Amino acid sequence: MKIHNFSAGPSILPQEVMQQASQAVKELDESGLSLIEISHRSKAFIEIMEEACERALQLTGLQGKGYKALFLQGGASQQFLMSAYNLLEKKAGFVNTGTWSTKAIKEAKLLGEVSEVASSQDANFNYIPKNYSVPSDLDYLHLTTNNTIFGTQIKSIPDTEVPLVADMSSDIFSRKFDYSKFDLFYAGAQKNMGPAGTTLVIFKEDALGKVSRSIPSMLDYAVQAKAESMFNTPPVFAVYTSLLTLRWIENQGGIEKIGIKNAAKATHLYGEIDRNSKFKGFAAPEDRSHMNATFNLTDPSLSETFDKICQTAGISGLKGHRSVGGYRASIYNALPIDSVEVLVDCMQILEKEY
Amino acid sequence: MKIHNFSAGPSILPQEVMQQASQAVKELDESGLSLIEISHRSKAFIEIMEEACERALQLTGLQGKGYKALFLQGGASQQFLMSAYNLLEKKAGFVNTGTWSTKAIKEAKLLGEVSEVASSQDANFNYIPKNYSVPSDLDYLHLTTNNTIFGTQIKSIPDTEVPLVADMSSDIFSRKFDYSKFDLFYAGAQKNMGPAGTTLVIFKEDALGKVSRSIPSMLDYAVQAKAESMFNTPPVFAVYTSLLTLRWIENQGGIEKIGIKNAAKATHLYGEIDRNSKFKGFAAPEDRSHMNATFNLTDPSLSETFDKICQTAGISGLKGHRSVGGYRASIYNALPIDSVEVLVDCMQILEKEY
Repeated sequence: MKIHNFSAGPSILPQEVMQQASQAVKELDESGLSLIEISHRSKAFIEIMEEACERALQLTGLQGKGYKALFLQGGASQQFLMSAYNLLEKKAGFVNTGTWSTKAIKEAKLLGEVSEVASSQDANFNYIPKNYSVPSDLDYLHLTTNNTIFGTQIKSIPDTEVPLVADMSSDIFSRKFDYSKFDLFYAGAQKNMGPAGTTLVIFKEDALGKVSRSIPSMLDYAVQAKAESMFNTPPVFAVYTSLLTLRWIENQGGIEKIGIKNAAKATHLYGEIDRNSKFKGFAAPEDRSHMNATFNLTDPSLSETFDKICQTAGISGLKGHRSVGGYRASIYNALPIDSVEVLVDCMQILEKEY
Repeated sequence: MKIHNFSAGPSILPQEVMQQASQAVKELDESGLSLIEISHRSKAFIEIMEEACERALQLTGLQGKGYKALFLQGGASQQFLMSAYNLLEKKAGFVNTGTWSTKAIKEAKLLGEVSEVASSQDANFNYIPKNYSVPSDLDYLHLTTNNTIFGTQIKSIPDTEVPLVADMSSDIFSRKFDYSKFDLFYAGAQKNMGPAGTTLVIFKEDALGKVSRSIPSMLDYAVQAKAESMFNTPPVFAVYTSLLTLRWIENQGGIEKIGIKNAAKATHLYGEIDRNSKFKGFAAPEDRSHMNATFNLTDPSLSETFDKICQTAGISGLKGHRSVGGYRASIYNALPIDSVEVLVDCMQILEKEY
């Protein structure tokens, strides 16, 4: 049976990427060796790393604009710490839009003063704060552009003189965007980019060097940049598979085209959530994420029935996060619209038959 | 042509492990989904992580002895920092046996006082210091059990009342050993355990909680232990492939049997290095590594000729590190003795024909 994979992350990747990655683990490009047994200092792997970094800059429109791309380890959680280590001298500001922002705030507090500039905690993070003022004395303002758990997404990046830093783990490469508004952004691979195990970090090169503390080597962007993401052995498989996905995005017509497809999938799904009497959306309509749609049953006693309908249709990974309950459909780049249609069918079956 | 892979790391893994890993990227256990697209919170992956941690403790003889195993990210380089963050309150001691020890010392210095208890830097690290005295006021003494670059290996663990910490990246699971002598040891996967991208850390649970500083979440062993290696998304592919290798080690008869095979490979190769007039070993004979054999030509002008002989025979990854020059044959667990025999043949061809 075909599985429709709505997992929040690790999550669906393009079928051809998984096939190519599988083949490379067997043998990389007729080299007689597996991808995972070659030296990271070999010509073959250095080319993989270089191409991955170049494509990341190209797709975000930042090539030749003074930015640097790195593939590191540790996930966004390590970036919560690392961004503060490298950029926080006195005070950083945060827009708190949920679990991940809260974790980022916690790590930054170890290294300096933190100002929570805005928060949507008053409504269990079901909306994106707007019209807040940004103090001018911040070293940077940190945003979470998409909130996987709550299903909200920042549609408009605030205009401010303060440097912007963003966690884009769950919506990078999903929509057209002025990435040059940011001094630094990062994204764990395991949503729209690749398997778990690597994290893309892109930063403006002149944003570094402004803090006075000693930075441990592994947490120092300058050290990692000087070593071209290879200060130590990089996560070879995760970087290679991310490169395959970046090539796939390019073949799809780049992120503008991908963004149009994602909007179509989201419109279809949210349309059904709003129309269907058995369901209600969780996030404020104007802030709804195009990556993670969160919704609940109007009658929670139907959950077992709906779960069964979904299971029969081959739907996987739809359970909502415990902070929200209900359902979460993660509709990342690689999820085909067919899968969304199957989910909509299941929602209609519930409405008609129960 | 069959390739004989002598790479220092990432390095050869068992053929069956690479086949199984490749298959899992296509589809995990007839689940209809790839290993890399399932949730790390799924039953399937939680079982993978649990089995990997259990097997690591079993193979090292530490199960039920108050130890905990974790699979983290960041490589040994991150452990240089993390071990100091968690264990260094006042002063740590280091036996400096080369590049990796030196890097570990550098990171520890950010967090406390460091005493270099012994060093072999006086002879370009070609031996392991012995008969040094260990000050009793150390929080711990850090060793590098095997030195990939210089080809030396600690044969006898010092007896001391001071807690021992070790970087075992390049010889873990390669020989029988009293692992309970250590309070903490760690190993990047990419030599004897799996692909680059995960790091095994094993520690005595009561060794933690003795420092007064605040530890960032990602660098806190207690946080990672409480979350069973899943404080954030783990490097799924690297952990799974490591598990496959741990199963393979078990099927080989465990590390005692593996150690006997490794000794046979090493004896064969060092025997030829000593016998053959064209070569000389780099490391002190009593400290020679069973994992990385370093050797040089007696007549360096023959290097192009020897390289050509090796290339014709399908030998890959033999170039020595720039700190030592010459050659380095990494003969990790998964390297078959046939490959060592092919290398010895090449060495004999050079001696006979040139």
